[in-house]
Amino acid sequence: MFDYGPLGSNMRNNIVEVWRDIYRGREGFIEIDSETVNPREVFKASGHVDEFADLISYCSKCSSAFRADHLVKEFFDNPDVLSPKELDDAFIKYDVKCLECGGKLGPVEEFNLMFKTTIGPGSSRVGYLRPETAQGIFVNYLNLYRYNREKLPLGVIQTGRGYRNEIAPRQGMIRMREFNMMEVELFVDPSDKGWVRFPEIEKMDITLVPNSGTESVTMTVGEAVEKKIIANKVLAYFIYTTQQLLVRLGVDPKRLRFRQHLKDEMAHYAMDCWDAEVLLSFGWIEVTGIADRGCWDLSRHAQFSGVELTHFKKFDEPKEMEIDKIKAKHKALGPKFKEKAKKIAEAMEAKLPSDVKDGKLALNIDGEEIVLDGELFEIARVKEKVSGERVVPHVIEPSHGLDRIFYSVLEHAYSHNEKEDYTVLRLRPEVAPIKAGIFPLMEKDGLDVLAMDIYSKVHSPAVEAYYDGSGTIGKRYARMDEIGTPWCITVDYESLDGPNKGTVTIRERDTTAQKRIPADSVPSILKALLGGKPFESL
Amino acid sequence: MFDYGPLGSNMRNNIVEVWRDIYRGREGFIEIDSETVNPREVFKASGHVDEFADLISYCSKCSSAFRADHLVKEFFDNPDVLSPKELDDAFIKYDVKCLECGGKLGPVEEFNLMFKTTIGPGSSRVGYLRPETAQGIFVNYLNLYRYNREKLPLGVIQTGRGYRNEIAPRQGMIRMREFNMMEVELFVDPSDKGWVRFPEIEKMDITLVPNSGTESVTMTVGEAVEKKIIANKVLAYFIYTTQQLLVRLGVDPKRLRFRQHLKDEMAHYAMDCWDAEVLLSFGWIEVTGIADRGCWDLSRHAQFSGVELTHFKKFDEPKEMEIDKIKAKHKALGPKFKEKAKKIAEAMEAKLPSDVKDGKLALNIDGEEIVLDGELFEIARVKEKVSGERVVPHVIEPSHGLDRIFYSVLEHAYSHNEKEDYTVLRLRPEVAPIKAGIFPLMEKDGLDVLAMDIYSKVHSPAVEAYYDGSGTIGKRYARMDEIGTPWCITVDYESLDGPNKGTVTIRERDTTAQKRIPADSVPSILKALLGGKPFESL
Repeated sequence: MFDYGPLGSNMRNNIVEVWRDIYRGREGFIEIDSETVNPREVFKASGHVDEFADLISYCSKCSSAFRADHLVKEFFDNPDVLSPKELDDAFIKYDVKCLECGGKLGPVEEFNLMFKTTIGPGSSRVGYLRPETAQGIFVNYLNLYRYNREKLPLGVIQTGRGYRNEIAPRQGMIRMREFNMMEVELFVDPSDKGWVRFPEIEKMDITLVPNSGTESVTMTVGEAVEKKIIANKVLAYFIYTTQQLLVRLGVDPKRLRFRQHLKDEMAHYAMDCWDAEVLLSFGWIEVTGIADRGCWDLSRHAQFSGVELTHFKKFDEPKEMEIDKIKAKHKALGPKFKEKAKKIAEAMEAKLPSDVKDGKLALNIDGEEIVLDGELFEIARVKEKVSGERVVPHVIEPSHGLDRIFYSVLEHAYSHNEKEDYTVLRLRPEVAPIKAGIFPLMEKDGLDVLAMDIYSKVHSPAVEAYYDGSGTIGKRYARMDEIGTPWCITVDYESLDGPNKGTVTIRERDTTAQKRIPADSVPSILKALLGGKPFESL
Repeated sequence: MFDYGPLGSNMRNNIVEVWRDIYRGREGFIEIDSETVNPREVFKASGHVDEFADLISYCSKCSSAFRADHLVKEFFDNPDVLSPKELDDAFIKYDVKCLECGGKLGPVEEFNLMFKTTIGPGSSRVGYLRPETAQGIFVNYLNLYRYNREKLPLGVIQTGRGYRNEIAPRQGMIRMREFNMMEVELFVDPSDKGWVRFPEIEKMDITLVPNSGTESVTMTVGEAVEKKIIANKVLAYFIYTTQQLLVRLGVDPKRLRFRQHLKDEMAHYAMDCWDAEVLLSFGWIEVTGIADRGCWDLSRHAQFSGVELTHFKKFDEPKEMEIDKIKAKHKALGPKFKEKAKKIAEAMEAKLPSDVKDGKLALNIDGEEIVLDGELFEIARVKEKVSGERVVPHVIEPSHGLDRIFYSVLEHAYSHNEKEDYTVLRLRPEVAPIKAGIFPLMEKDGLDVLAMDIYSKVHSPAVEAYYDGSGTIGKRYARMDEIGTPWCITVDYESLDGPNKGTVTIRERDTTAQKRIPADSVPSILKALLGGKPFESL
């Protein structure tokens, strides 16, 4: 678990704002903020209660805990697909012992990675800290669909905490127990996997590592879809959007690639899945996953909640159709359910034949689960004039690890001159935690008054400024260079008197170039620079 | 637990930005973001493990749980000061039974309100979800103090989740188990409780309910300090700042007051404490607490961590002083601690005589707690030239319940015309979730193209716009009025042709006044209106 200090939290907030600008601004998606503690039922539906586990091995002597797959990673290419039995066998075959005391490793077992707690008094109501923000969007699907006036596509974003009770947190900000995410869930019509803005980017280059091999290839987005390397246009569009986001934040495009999940790595329900990987000092690290999750999420929540989570797709004009419908067998229902029979019959007939599982139909009547046998209903083919059909939307999910992106941006911005032992953090201005250092040459003779006046006119949460009056100017520049501040303003004696009266110097971090500008235009000039105006044009 | 939807999360973010503008912008405070799951040790130090509890009573028959004080609130003025024994007695005296089944209520016991979990594999490492964001600031004090170049005052803000496992969550957003806070911790020199900007606000009015009575009185901030109603200037300044914040957000000043905690309500360490209370349909509800917490927080964390959390206060010039110092008795230490003796002696002499408790001195050496008896050290009075002294900063804490503020703003903005059954949410523009509705009169003839073009130029996360082409214009205005959108832009046929070509109408929510403005100035005019330009001046 990490705390973000003043610079870190500013910079992280700036990253979130860029992501918002792309998804809420450009794409018009909506944003929600859902709870972080959820009742067990939510994660039963999502599969996390049963599936979200790592394999763990405790030392039989000292009780140290290890991620079992990490212990054998030198012997297998892909150790995280091994079963507990295979790992037990591998420990024997390769003589793997406890890393702490050399003791015998106990049998490998599953360890659920969710933080568990109880909600309210008593211990009966189990809750979990969410392992991802996505489920909060899925469980709100119906509200959000209505907010969107029952139209698709429906794009929803959420940023906030995620929690995974890692067995072995490591690599600094790469594997944290409490972390920050920026997730996007885009609900689309399963029969329309295009995207209205796709033509804008189809000629752009992207570097891919398809799962047909291990080599990276660079091609246009359009080509990747045409050759069926990326499953569809909407997925390809958001893979490219991820590249735009990461590069805009300061990730070096030459150290960025998109790797397709291997067949055995992909979730069984995923129709296609790509990881944005950034080359860091740790190697290639996944910072974002972009997946076509098909109808998995909504189908599961519909199944577990008994609530239909679909989109009504209107035909251009009503069609006469032969459709299969569930018909209640009233004669059988009546005697069995008495006064409830009518309600049950209605609920049955609102279901789809595809809801019948193993010949049975599950209903949720006033919170009570009722499972009906085949003798209580039939599936009849009827002719009907229908105005549309209900479909379960597919989900395209770009899911960003905010801390990993934060760290990637820092590493790619870091530059150090060995000879002079001088560090410059070349952060993009919109990401930099402080936009401007403001210095009086000396803290006297009114230089400090003018500098403080400029500071108070510039400084705001959006244009964070830093007043510094101590040490040599060189030292103050160095401090600002080291934390990535793109510009510094210095008030000197020329500001007060002589031909340059009323002007101050502005220095650009990356070139160390300096210019004199009017003191009273500092706020507007900084805003223009932040908006992309080139320093040379001042 | 509540989820914030698209409008709610925008509006809540807008409230946070106003708070940031005041604290980070105007006051120059720094912001951090610390973890929400903390190890037990943090809350042992803060007192939450031992003290943060409500009294609970379970029904002996049906096991329903109740907050014991709520069960007797009709019989006592201030039931939350009653002890478990007094509550048990009161149940008998007033014949209080289970509200669910009428059963006998079991003995009253303590129920800790923190959500508990375990960190990492095994169950040995207990963690809690933070009940407030403040502790994350206190445990980071030394880092933040260094960031501030070891100067006071040091103002730190944090917004994020807090968790209280309430026995009886109620009143909608007023008492939630998972909630949002905006907290400010201001560290000040205990001998200087002034504030540099105090003169700017000392003549301003504020409505107070001092704990000397129950009546509210309105007076100037300066008067309240002079009459010692508010303990000091810095506390008074931030009480007034809270008023500025709440009123700027849209709380009706006539339904806002500051109530001083009663003597038996105030935490034992608090030097003074006031609640900002807002009159809602539930009655007067606390939305913010503003307290002078003295040296409590840093002293406790220093005591429990063994790390000194102080400020070095430099004298104007060095002073010759007689001071008490801890001196190690090397002869006694050597035989007892062998090679460790030197390290222990140094650690002892870095401590202050005030660190000696019950004649013993506790040290933390390389993570190990060592308690030294009185025969191992002495306290000697020595003459020394000292350049300053170490003081434990006092903490001024304005702590805001973000969800309660959010709800207050909604209630005070809500206006409903019974006769016309028409709702207008009169939100301040900077708080409104959507700033502008943008409508084509009809979705044809190019009106929609122009309206969409304006939408895409206006819309950003900071100036959220909403395109609406469906239903009558009246219906579209009504939708926007109901969610508090301050301005609507309509593209009509005049926009395309005739003397008004190139203009659109803009409508103000609160007056329903309309004006024609150039279509291409819509983005800049909306920015000006958001910046406070009056509609009449357009």
